[in-house]
Parts: sequence; C-alpha cells; structure tokens
Amino acid sequence: MLNPADAAFCEVLEKSLPSGLLRPLTPNYLEEPRRYYKGTGGALAAPRTTEEVSQVVRQCAEHNVGIVPYGGGTGLVGGQVMPDGPAPLILSLERMNKIRSVHPDENVLVADAGAILADVQSAAKDHDRLFPLSLASEGSCQIGGNLATNAGGVNVLRYGNTRDLCLGLEAVLPNGEILNGLTRLRKDNTGFDLRNLMIGAEGALGVITAATLRLFPRPQNNGTAFMAVSNPAAALKLLSIARGEVGEGVTAFELISKTALSFLAETMPEVRLPFESFPEWMVLIDFGLSANTSAQAALERIFSHAFSTGIVTDGVIAQSESQQAEFWTLRESIPLANRKIGAIGSHDISIPLGEIGTFIEVATQRLSEYGSVRVNCFGHLGDGNLHFNVFPPKGETLEKFKPMRSDVQRIIHDLVAEFEGSFSAEHGIGRIKTTELIRYANPAKLATMVAIKSALDPLGIMNPGVIVP
Amino acid sequence: MLNPADAAFCEVLEKSLPSGLLRPLTPNYLEEPRRYYKGTGGALAAPRTTEEVSQVVRQCAEHNVGIVPYGGGTGLVGGQVMPDGPAPLILSLERMNKIRSVHPDENVLVADAGAILADVQSAAKDHDRLFPLSLASEGSCQIGGNLATNAGGVNVLRYGNTRDLCLGLEAVLPNGEILNGLTRLRKDNTGFDLRNLMIGAEGALGVITAATLRLFPRPQNNGTAFMAVSNPAAALKLLSIARGEVGEGVTAFELISKTALSFLAETMPEVRLPFESFPEWMVLIDFGLSANTSAQAALERIFSHAFSTGIVTDGVIAQSESQQAEFWTLRESIPLANRKIGAIGSHDISIPLGEIGTFIEVATQRLSEYGSVRVNCFGHLGDGNLHFNVFPPKGETLEKFKPMRSDVQRIIHDLVAEFEGSFSAEHGIGRIKTTELIRYANPAKLATMVAIKSALDPLGIMNPGVIVP
Repeated sequence: MLNPADAAFCEVLEKSLPSGLLRPLTPNYLEEPRRYYKGTGGALAAPRTTEEVSQVVRQCAEHNVGIVPYGGGTGLVGGQVMPDGPAPLILSLERMNKIRSVHPDENVLVADAGAILADVQSAAKDHDRLFPLSLASEGSCQIGGNLATNAGGVNVLRYGNTRDLCLGLEAVLPNGEILNGLTRLRKDNTGFDLRNLMIGAEGALGVITAATLRLFPRPQNNGTAFMAVSNPAAALKLLSIARGEVGEGVTAFELISKTALSFLAETMPEVRLPFESFPEWMVLIDFGLSANTSAQAALERIFSHAFSTGIVTDGVIAQSESQQAEFWTLRESIPLANRKIGAIGSHDISIPLGEIGTFIEVATQRLSEYGSVRVNCFGHLGDGNLHFNVFPPKGETLEKFKPMRSDVQRIIHDLVAEFEGSFSAEHGIGRIKTTELIRYANPAKLATMVAIKSALDPLGIMNPGVIVP
Repeated sequence: MLNPADAAFCEVLEKSLPSGLLRPLTPNYLEEPRRYYKGTGGALAAPRTTEEVSQVVRQCAEHNVGIVPYGGGTGLVGGQVMPDGPAPLILSLERMNKIRSVHPDENVLVADAGAILADVQSAAKDHDRLFPLSLASEGSCQIGGNLATNAGGVNVLRYGNTRDLCLGLEAVLPNGEILNGLTRLRKDNTGFDLRNLMIGAEGALGVITAATLRLFPRPQNNGTAFMAVSNPAAALKLLSIARGEVGEGVTAFELISKTALSFLAETMPEVRLPFESFPEWMVLIDFGLSANTSAQAALERIFSHAFSTGIVTDGVIAQSESQQAEFWTLRESIPLANRKIGAIGSHDISIPLGEIGTFIEVATQRLSEYGSVRVNCFGHLGDGNLHFNVFPPKGETLEKFKPMRSDVQRIIHDLVAEFEGSFSAEHGIGRIKTTELIRYANPAKLATMVAIKSALDPLGIMNPGVIVP
C-alpha cells in the first residue's frame, strides 16, 4: 500500500530538495478534458532539471509515495488524474520546456519533455524542417506526454505514430536512476529496446524527461482537397489511387461522415462546409510533395481518374493556403461539435484496413438493433483508425441515454475484437480502459506486462492504476 | 546452472513431443559466418507449428535446458552459436517457412518466422508490392532472424530498420506461452510495446514464430548512379540536395571508399568499376519514384547541381536495369573482397550524421598513430552507419596483425563513444559484443535490461549468453 503525499511528506521534500521545486497544487491538475474523473493529489512538484526529477522520484521511492507524471493534461483516458487511493505527488514537467538543440543537417531536434508540441513544431520550422506530429491539442500538449501516450494525430499515415518520430529518450526510472538514451543515431542495435518500452507506457515505467526527435524536409508543394464518396470502401480505393500517384506524398487522409457535417451545421454554423448537399461520406486529403511536383495538379489528376471511374462523386481542391487552413478547420471542429451535441460514448478504435467498410456497416446495424442512436464515425482512415462516437437521437437529452454507455461500448468493442481490431488505437489505456485491457488482451501479453511492471517498479509508485493496475 | 540437452533429455523430448520433431544435429548449426566461434549443441528440434515451438520450450523450461533459436545462421555477432556451457537445444525455425497470407490492399503480409527473406520479398512482388528489407544474405536469412536482430541493410534510409517494417508478432515466451500479437493494425495503443521489446532481443526473451509485415507500393521509376566526391562531408551535402529534390524517393545512399575499389580491383577483377581512376570517395545512390516522375532525370538534375557547385567531381547514371544491377553488384561485392583481403577487425558503428566526416578523419588518424594499417570504411551513409574495417598493410599477412584486433577495436569503439555513436549499429550484440555492452552502456540501461531478462526468463534458458550474460 502506498503512502499519501501528505503534509509530513511535503515537509520531507521541502527539506531534502532544492528550493522552489514544490508549487501550490491548483485544481486544474486534478481535471481531465472529458470530466469522467476527478483526481486526487497531495502535492505538486515542478522540477527544472532531469536531476531534480531524479531527486523527486528517489524521495517518493524512499517513502513509498505514488507519482502521477503530468504533461499538458490533454490525455483522453485519465492517465493524468488518479481518482482514488492515497493522494499522489503530481510531477509536472511544465518547467522543463526548452528545445535543447536543433541539428537541421541531421534532421534531429532534442527537446525537454515539457516542451509544448507547437513549440517543437515551430522550432523545426525555424530551421526549415518539419516535425510532423500534429493533433488538435498541439497548442497545449507536451512532447513528453505525446511520447508517454504514443500519440497519433493526422499525419501518422505518412510519418508514423509518435514512437516512429523518436530516436532517443532520457527518462527517470522508478528507482530515481536516469536512463540516458538521448542518441541522435538512426541505427543502434545495442540491447533491448527500452526506448519503445518507455514510449506508450503512459508513465507507468518511468518519467520521460527529454527526447531526440526526427525532423523531415518540409514538403515544398502542399495541396488539400475534399472529395465526396458514397462509402468507406470507395474512400479506400481513392487512397490507393492517390498513393499510386504520389506515393508517400499522401500526408493525411481523413474520413468524414454526413453526421459530422450535420453536427457542424447544427452547432458551429461559422464553419464553412464544402458541398451544397451533404454527401454520405467525404475525405479530406492532404498532399505534401517535393519540389518540381505540383500538389494541385496531382490532386486534379486523381480526382478526374476517380470521378471517371465512379469512385468519387464530387470534389473541391483548395485554391490557396488560407483555403487549405479552412478545410482543416472543418476537420478539427468535428470533436468540438461532438462535445456540443454530447456523446453517449466515444470509441477510439482501429480495424484492419481492408475490413473497415464492413465493420462500419455491421457496427451501425448492431447499434440500431440495440436502440435508436446516431453514429458519427470519422477519423484517420488511412491508418484504419476510426473515432466511432455514438449520440442520442435528435431532440433527445444525453441524460436519458447516458446509462446506455457501457452497453454501447460493449457492442462496439466486442465487434472490434471480432474484426481483430484495437479498442484503443491512439488514446492509450490510462485508467479508463484498464478493464477493457483485461477483457480483450491476450493473456500472455497481460502477464508479460505485469512482469515488466513488477520488475521495473516493484513498489508500484509510477502512475499507480495506469495500464496494469 | 542449466542442464545439457543430453541423450536423457532427448529421450524425454522423443516421448513427450509429436514425432519427427527432432532432427540430426549437423555441424552447420554450430558454425557462424566469421568463424570466431564454434558452437555446442546437444540436440536439434525443428518444429512445424507455433504450438510445437511452445511444447519444445515448455520441456526445456521444465528441465532447465538452454535453447538457441536458429534462423538462417547468417548473423555476424554469434547470436546463433553458443560456444560453451551445458549443450543447448538448437531450435531451428526452418520448417516454419510459409507466407501465411498477403493483404495487398492493406499493404500487409503475414509470414512464418522461418520464411527466407527473399521469399518474403518475392511474395510481396507477386502482389505488386514491395517488402523493402534488403541485405546481402537475403537468399538465406530468415525473417524471424531479421526481426530478432532488428536487421538493417541498404534501404533503411527510406523504409527504416526491420522493427519499422513489423506491425505485429507472434512469439513463444520463455515459459512456453504463446504471445499472440499478429495484428494487421497500423495503430494499437493497448499497453507496453512488447513487439518492439521482442524485436532486437536476439532470442533472449523468447522465440519469434511469425510476424505481420508492412508492404509498400513498388516504386514505378527507379534510378541508380555512382557519384564521386572528395570527402564524406561532400557526400552528406549531396544527400541533402537529393532529398530536397525527391524527398523520401532517396532509397539508398551508400558510401564507398577508394580502398574498397582497390580491394575489388585486387581480389575480384570480374567486378566492373565505374571510373577510370579511383576517386577518394564515391556514393551509390538509388532513387525509387512514383509514376510521372523520371528517376533518371532527377539524378541528372542533382548531378548537374552538385557538379556545378563542386560537391561532386564525376558521376555515372545507370542506363538500364541491368546496369543498375551491375552497380549494386559492386556494392555487394565489397564485403566479399574484404574477406579475401582479411580484416584485422570489422566495426559496425554509427555516428551522428553531422559528425561522420570528422569521425572518419580522427579515427583514421588515431589508427595511423597506432600502427601501419589500411582502412576500408564503407556503408549506409544516410543512416550514419559505417562499416569501419581495418586491414594489414599491403603485402603483410593477417596472421602477424591479428593480435592487434583488440587494440584496434578499443581505439575505434572508444572514439565512437566520444562521438556519442554506437558500437553496434545493425549487427546486434550477440555473444561477441557483450563485454562492449557492459563497457559502454549507460548503467541504468544495463540494469533495466537485466531486470527485464530476469523477469521474463527467470531460468535463463532463452539463448543463454546473448546480450545480458
């Protein structure tokens, strides 16, 4: 059993740690965006250096006090808030927010874990490079949190998940030791892959304090288009055509449903919608091409090819940078509109690419058999990642339908399992999905995760309750 | 202490396992390409299914017998041979050599671990897809071994190391349980990353039995060229120009030294060399571009740009597929020529890209201070991966210089550490580099690896002596 980070422990910290390390614990550290959980916490430490993180962790280990690592606080699965148990120490990386170095000729950037994602992006841009991780919360999420949760986002199709963007890590282990793996190397086969073990472990195996990140050349020619399709299978055919045309130049390929458009029209009339009448489905396509290749022309070519073969039924290609931004505003407004409507449940799932069309059909059918609900299915189609969100019928209150949440989740997640998909494509397990993990994970996988957690964090102080409770 | 796989144990196996699973242990299973080690072994098991692998491992766990997993036997660090200790059971994957399924519309292929790499490549090609892992031993190495060692090769620059080409794994754990993670998903954030932990663990944490692999569109327009440069720094500038021109279209970028050319001329006169007089350095560049983009024209553009700015001094662009193949034959003949000359020592190192030029200069200088030797430095420049091989002076016998091996290795690896590089970029640790690992690894990393090994393989039966002895 852990001890609370109570007044007595804070006194110990005050005495043993460099001054100014503890800060007042304000309520924002105990909240998460979806308000499913309210956190507990006994103290807030905001170290300025990796050495200070190490000192904090050592004290917690010595006194058997739980630690909740805290980044931007934008995670969607409760990894950043501990709702019960002995009040933990909240360890915020907010003061470790520097870009340590940029090596443009190596396409490498080294950042503190607390650096805001948008700051990493702009530091790369300052050196005419691209750091491609891009997600709705980029203005406030921190790169350490992105790594701890292996965040996804809209550019995974081309550049991979956060783990694919990381060359090396510095982290503080549960015993306070510093794992220095801040390599700038592309290849390093010297033992077990601890970097990838820490990435996506959601703070359960240690605190990430810095990372070496991969940069890319900035695409010289960008193009963005909406294209209307009659179903997700047609969208996948379009993706295949697009890739045949520009290969890795397809940067993003986002599926948007008719429901998403009607939610936007209903709740956010300021968002401009591309077509007169809403198509059943549409995709937002982004091309990022190198010099001497016109993205606009490539989009026109794939549109005429796909239109002539009946794969797309309509389309609009952005004619300026500001129109490109406008197209993306639509995409990024979907989660906001969803919140205004109020979801019974949100499901961050992935399905083998070839079966997405069938999955959406069967899932919608099963839900309609269960009850009268609306589905807004959208997301990163090219990655097989759908946000499959379920809402009350128009005119009904969320309150009345909230009790359906667990049934709806069971219907969807069971079907995901039938399709050999994942019930957490990009958001992680956190505290919200631990029971789902136990239900759906391969038993040998679960046992191995528990063995690793016990071996590296025998006291169980690192983000207690996350992933393997 | 482990027990040997002796006659008594073989009798137990014969009785408890399906018939035909044991095979005669022929000497080839106890050899490795560089002949540094001669292996021991008490028995050879060649299971036909994952279930049979599991049964073999369970028996070994029950009787405390060591297991050496055996793929194509092409590894260069002794991971496949155990030179001493109680004779292990050799577990060969050779009969599990099927392509289980191909999903061209998902760019996914599922293969048994024992599938020969070339067979995986050609199964992908049969579906008009590319499996990009490519290395000299592709005709005999197995995909399971490639995964266990996280093999590199010539296409890492564009497509990544083997770990980047794997979506999911099936493996048998040291307790005989089957870890079923054969997902076809691009995104799956459900817990610790056991896939990457198994990849590169060189059989020390379990036996990989199958994998889900990523396929890619086959580039439509390929081009290959040799370009002469005066030093490695110029080569890196050329790489930067090439990437500016075709982005990810640069598939390979290999550095070749003057010494490599003279070794080829001396030992393999049948290999055609591109320039009248040998340049100090040259690079082999490979472009793989999508439709509507001429690789030849792109190579011509970067050549004239680089030539006019003095970055390259000469160049030749392959005019046909057969000439492209001829260029690659030169590159692949370098290790063969090296073997004919006879190296004092081979070093598979990586260096932060921006410092490669300086490293090569300093390393060559330090070696010349130590003694009169020849250096053949070549390799995957775009990845920062050099094969830095050291030879006796012309006319001298290797026998006389062999005693220098450990001194030479110390000079090079110490310098690699100064440059924050890696003493094993793509070959792994195996048994040959375990002392180097202890010498150079971050202590927290070593301790964490030992903790993981103890947690997952408490008996120490999985490939004993590898990575963490």
